[in-house]
Amino acid sequence: MILKEICAPIKEDLKVYEKEFKALLKSNVFLVDKVVQYIIASKGKRLRPILVLLTSRLHNGNGKVPDKDNMRAAAIMELLHIASLVHDDVVDSSSQRRGLPSVNSIWKNKVSVLMGDYLFSKALLAMLGMKNMRVYEIISQTAERMTEGELLGVERSKDYRMEEEVYFRLIADKTASLIAAACQLGAVSVSDDEEHITAMRDFGENLGIAFQIRDDLLDILGKEKKTGKPLGNDLRDNKVTLPLIYALRNARKKDSRRVIRMIKRSAKRHEIKEIISFVEDHGGVEYAMQRANSHIGLAKKSLERYPSNEYRASLEKLVDFVTAREN
Amino acid sequence: MILKEICAPIKEDLKVYEKEFKALLKSNVFLVDKVVQYIIASKGKRLRPILVLLTSRLHNGNGKVPDKDNMRAAAIMELLHIASLVHDDVVDSSSQRRGLPSVNSIWKNKVSVLMGDYLFSKALLAMLGMKNMRVYEIISQTAERMTEGELLGVERSKDYRMEEEVYFRLIADKTASLIAAACQLGAVSVSDDEEHITAMRDFGENLGIAFQIRDDLLDILGKEKKTGKPLGNDLRDNKVTLPLIYALRNARKKDSRRVIRMIKRSAKRHEIKEIISFVEDHGGVEYAMQRANSHIGLAKKSLERYPSNEYRASLEKLVDFVTAREN
Repeated sequence: MILKEICAPIKEDLKVYEKEFKALLKSNVFLVDKVVQYIIASKGKRLRPILVLLTSRLHNGNGKVPDKDNMRAAAIMELLHIASLVHDDVVDSSSQRRGLPSVNSIWKNKVSVLMGDYLFSKALLAMLGMKNMRVYEIISQTAERMTEGELLGVERSKDYRMEEEVYFRLIADKTASLIAAACQLGAVSVSDDEEHITAMRDFGENLGIAFQIRDDLLDILGKEKKTGKPLGNDLRDNKVTLPLIYALRNARKKDSRRVIRMIKRSAKRHEIKEIISFVEDHGGVEYAMQRANSHIGLAKKSLERYPSNEYRASLEKLVDFVTAREN
Repeated sequence: MILKEICAPIKEDLKVYEKEFKALLKSNVFLVDKVVQYIIASKGKRLRPILVLLTSRLHNGNGKVPDKDNMRAAAIMELLHIASLVHDDVVDSSSQRRGLPSVNSIWKNKVSVLMGDYLFSKALLAMLGMKNMRVYEIISQTAERMTEGELLGVERSKDYRMEEEVYFRLIADKTASLIAAACQLGAVSVSDDEEHITAMRDFGENLGIAFQIRDDLLDILGKEKKTGKPLGNDLRDNKVTLPLIYALRNARKKDSRRVIRMIKRSAKRHEIKEIISFVEDHGGVEYAMQRANSHIGLAKKSLERYPSNEYRASLEKLVDFVTAREN
């Protein structure tokens, strides 16, 4: 399944969005324009704008979409996402992003921190145009959840005995909150029915959780060429993920301690391979897949209340695409 | 003149503010609470909340202030200010802030970037409570100006032939915008008279510009013990300031080139002293003071439309305090 097929019903909307998005980012500071051009050129999958546009259409299929508010909502989500990526590269000292040098590896931390803040301010300005208190509410709460989730992640890095509950809170706040916000904004920008907004929140949260579990799995199962990141990156960064939590809890204590020691003293390449085998042998991969599938099921269930049309079909396909992706 | 005297008419308001501010920052992530406690303990002059509270009172002297909205507005301004300081420490790789180790020197860049974002999200949540579109407008535009100003500063660092016009745009966006926003929010939280809001913007912008010129002067004239920063820090950071711009423009070309060479190859301690003498000898200090005074005059002029009461008197005193401060 390819993304192009999923986006077919919003092909025209996406074109309008692209234009609006670029117009929004004009700046008369040369350096800002240069960095923005670089970021736009290495554009990702645009998952969040796609979610906004599809969920907008879902709630107002034959209505007057795309209108300005849809486009603004889509741009807000992409801006918040990019801003957080630019900051994440500083946070994780990453030198690569989407297979290209990261902003901070070209312009250093200084520019990355300020550019993230700048993109965030652009999201605020885009919100202003919507003049919708519900949008402010969703975005403010999402911003708090995202940053608190990230900080919880920092606090709990190296906590290899982390309870699953903490792991799920962490990924829900860090990742799922923004995806849920995208789906909610899609609904909010065409409807004020709170039941729809709740359904979209549930859809997005479950999709986001499944997405992040899958992302964590890719660090173990992924093909480096496709992900553009070296395998076992999370292990090297002392990031605790679900497959590892499960394996450590279910292996013999002695073996778990040995693995933890290896990770703590910065595992070498051959040790990374050994740890990955350990996780697989103790059912960590299987368990994580199972948990991801359960959230995939819940996400799809949230769509059942909607009429079967091309937008709902695309959202269903998107769930599979996002959670089965190899990069 | 001391700050305590200036704050006398809003003594009780400030107590309410302090309580609200602390309540706002509660988090159930231990790490977040720890960093927040550290930041609050090393609290600064609270200049921006003081401006909000004084300008609120100015517009509604005998009204029902302080109310929730005043307190929220004051908290928003302090949150934005602290967030930008925490990020600035990463941007400038500063190890000290207010004479104490900076957040990034204790918790590293990772936590500083995320904490800045977190504080910013808290400002958004505080705004939500005000349900006032004008507040969103002012804050969004201010956020854009601040970050764009900072990025212009990065782009133009080492640009020793910078036009004065660029310097003034830079400090207006980087520094004065937030101070102007504080004064505007004071008015907005009790009045919707656009003339008042404009008067407050003019007051704050001019105060902010004078404040920043003075800050730049302190780098040359300051006493290290009082400022908590080593003298000539801006020179070492290749930050171009008004006294230097003026001196370089008015000295003999040969001498200016010599000074620029010294700065570019990272001036040593005795060279810093030489550069400072160069700036003084070529009228840079005097000129910058003159320009600061002209903005001080404009700021005070914006207050003339208001009745002579204790709040206006305090604001007038605050202008002198802020622009004559030694730290």
